[in-house]
Amino acid sequence: MITLYGDPAKTRANRCSWMLKELEIEFSLEKLAFLPGQPKPPEFLALNPNGKCPTLVDEGFSLFESLAINLYLAKKYGGVLGPQTAEEEALVTQWSLWVMAEVEKPLLMAAAIRTLFTPADPSDEELELALWKLARPWGVLNAHLERQPFILGERFSVADINVASVMHMALIAELNMSAWPALKAWLDTCLSRPQAIDLLTVDFKVPRPKTPRDIIAMFL
Amino acid sequence: MITLYGDPAKTRANRCSWMLKELEIEFSLEKLAFLPGQPKPPEFLALNPNGKCPTLVDEGFSLFESLAINLYLAKKYGGVLGPQTAEEEALVTQWSLWVMAEVEKPLLMAAAIRTLFTPADPSDEELELALWKLARPWGVLNAHLERQPFILGERFSVADINVASVMHMALIAELNMSAWPALKAWLDTCLSRPQAIDLLTVDFKVPRPKTPRDIIAMFL
Repeated sequence: MITLYGDPAKTRANRCSWMLKELEIEFSLEKLAFLPGQPKPPEFLALNPNGKCPTLVDEGFSLFESLAINLYLAKKYGGVLGPQTAEEEALVTQWSLWVMAEVEKPLLMAAAIRTLFTPADPSDEELELALWKLARPWGVLNAHLERQPFILGERFSVADINVASVMHMALIAELNMSAWPALKAWLDTCLSRPQAIDLLTVDFKVPRPKTPRDIIAMFL
Repeated sequence: MITLYGDPAKTRANRCSWMLKELEIEFSLEKLAFLPGQPKPPEFLALNPNGKCPTLVDEGFSLFESLAINLYLAKKYGGVLGPQTAEEEALVTQWSLWVMAEVEKPLLMAAAIRTLFTPADPSDEELELALWKLARPWGVLNAHLERQPFILGERFSVADINVASVMHMALIAELNMSAWPALKAWLDTCLSRPQAIDLLTVDFKVPRPKTPRDIIAMFL
């Protein structure tokens, strides 16, 4: 019995609901989402002391960090979605850490400025900073995907799910990706899978910090 | 034949040289370190298109992201340093992603402000922001280590190497960790291993950005 904690429309649980749908296994969904500063129930903190979603419980085994959850599920239940060799497994871990280190925070900042902050102010100068940070890693991934259709090579895998589930915020942000055509084509391919439906229905707002400095600080 | 690219005194290659020393396997060290803006040699970009250190090559298999490298090495060569079950492996990945997402960037900013920036200005107000960001995840890890001596339980493993090799910047930053005594004791235990020697000899400076906004932007 698998339980996923987190509302896919409001938290990164959408990354894991995508993976679970790819696996075609039944799971129970607890649609949690906490507002900033809201106290977390002790029974949830017992599962994840960070008090964050997503959290997954599989037969009593509790796990957090969305991309770690997906890799665990892919290895245990994923067949060809999972890594088939030690090298493939290392590459899945590599690209998962890479997208967290290089892409996630500036991309989330860009998405916040473009569409998630309330009140909106699309003139925020910090958008330029975010786009400048993203250009180098996006160039790297674009070149990789010019040589092969998916991150591990010829087949769609958990590596694509993990990287695309972070990259999908580029669509939320409505960013122009014409400078990275292979990356854009790959992202469209991944996100057009019916199992990725939860990523297309993001529905939350973030209170806009008062100053440019506070905007960047939010995503440090 | 294993080759590690990156100067352990100037890059995150120290995380991987620690792991390689724990494994007691011979490796060749290429002491690369690039200054910001310095062009990267094409033969290095062919190994790692990000042009960053560390990069590891094992019998022709090239891998980047320091914590992914360590997990790969631990699984292939690590014996009890590596994960023994699917659940342990998931927890190593979980804590490696966690320390990158929750700890690395604010901690690096704190270390830069305290000891790495040149010219130094220890009055930088952004230090407060970094410490505020760190307090919550450090509280989580401290509570975890109050219940068990190491991250996976009773034995030292790659999970400790990965998390401690990020956390060691707290020593570089000379931060007061008295509010997190279990975390501090664990970190001292890990870093006092003779194999961790490269982490204690960090030797580089970072040009100090001109404004507080630019300091935060550096670590976004």
